[in-house]
Amino acid sequence: MSIEERIAHAGIEIPHLEIPQAAFKPYVLHGGLLTISGQLPLLAGRPVATGAVPGIVTIAEAKQAARQCAINVLAWARHACNGDWDRIQQVLRVGGYVVTSEGYTNAPEIINAASELITEVLGERGAHARLAMGVSSLPMNVTVEVEAMLAVRT
Amino acid sequence: MSIEERIAHAGIEIPHLEIPQAAFKPYVLHGGLLTISGQLPLLAGRPVATGAVPGIVTIAEAKQAARQCAINVLAWARHACNGDWDRIQQVLRVGGYVVTSEGYTNAPEIINAASELITEVLGERGAHARLAMGVSSLPMNVTVEVEAMLAVRT
Amino acid sequence: MSIEERIAHAGIEIPHLEIPQAAFKPYVLHGGLLTISGQLPLLAGRPVATGAVPGIVTIAEAKQAARQCAINVLAWARHACNGDWDRIQQVLRVGGYVVTSEGYTNAPEIINAASELITEVLGERGAHARLAMGVSSLPMNVTVEVEAMLAVRT
Repeated sequence: MSIEERIAHAGIEIPHLEIPQAAFKPYVLHGGLLTISGQLPLLAGRPVATGAVPGIVTIAEAKQAARQCAINVLAWARHACNGDWDRIQQVLRVGGYVVTSEGYTNAPEIINAASELITEVLGERGAHARLAMGVSSLPMNVTVEVEAMLAVRT
Repeated sequence: MSIEERIAHAGIEIPHLEIPQAAFKPYVLHGGLLTISGQLPLLAGRPVATGAVPGIVTIAEAKQAARQCAINVLAWARHACNGDWDRIQQVLRVGGYVVTSEGYTNAPEIINAASELITEVLGERGAHARLAMGVSSLPMNVTVEVEAMLAVRT
Repeated sequence: MSIEERIAHAGIEIPHLEIPQAAFKPYVLHGGLLTISGQLPLLAGRPVATGAVPGIVTIAEAKQAARQCAINVLAWARHACNGDWDRIQQVLRVGGYVVTSEGYTNAPEIINAASELITEVLGERGAHARLAMGVSSLPMNVTVEVEAMLAVRT
């Protein structure tokens, strides 16, 4: 299957994002190393989940949010490659950060939804090293944030 | 403008730091990749802000602290390049960590002060991908910490 | 001293780990860059310390746990190099994350135990840049987690 077929098979759409005016960039591509900024679970500009998990947000909702973060990571990866998925050689590292409630320590359970989508779309090239942990607060009060580093053909 | 002119224009001084005896290094430069350790907002060895933001520390003070972290990042970048700013090709990633009070989730607001200074000094080469989030505690009880990865000409 | 002699001198054993079935990889090696996933303080599959430090876990226990994380980082580094330690050129970055109790901010004190072991085993090639901080929760409720990035000869 091509990457586009895998995306359709996963039942997702990868949005065409525009680089915003901001104090930092959504990604930097230099010398074959693509660094993607921490992605929030934004869908059409709005967060799909805010607040701590579990409690305010259910585990299922948090996983859906992690999946949305991964969709945005993929969107920037495609943007950096000018739409040519084949330039992606390997996802190196995914960092996944979750606002966890007192007593809940299973950030990996949430971030797996991001990892699985990335691997579903990119196959072996999507298999990555990872850090997943619970943090105190994330921008816009979102539940989860995902950053990534990839090797890309120049 | 040269980098030195930009530094003067920003109204800052980049200190000449000495590599301390410690269990880790302030930076590692290897194969064109410069990794700078998490920098605290130290000025002449003392933290400019300690405790959570907002509350113990105001947002303006926390931004000033983030700026001081960025000054220290720049100090080690210059050190790694033996004073030759032109060896810096690109800032790849900035990680910014803030001790946020209950109910405050805007770590990006604080870390923007670091991002803006780095970009003000280094121009397009300073435009970076970023992670910004709220964490539980930082060394010496400081309010903010900033790490960075850069591409450097060898 | 050879690396094997250093390991014996440190009084540790580096386990032979098997790559688990999971949503992510314990490490990715690509183009000379080795990214090792966040390692928990697991010994024979069980965490050596769980809960916040200090309080539930003493500082000495947390340091021992950080050391165990570092042992697992070294185990994957050796695995990635097919057992040939000489392929390791340089540890670039170590990220150390600690679940800190209210009022305790000295994550570096804990993570130093990991940094010191890595440097004891790998010598100058083990000297690394670092981030150390307190976070809200870690997988399996462990006290400490350590990730790493290394340059490796291909």
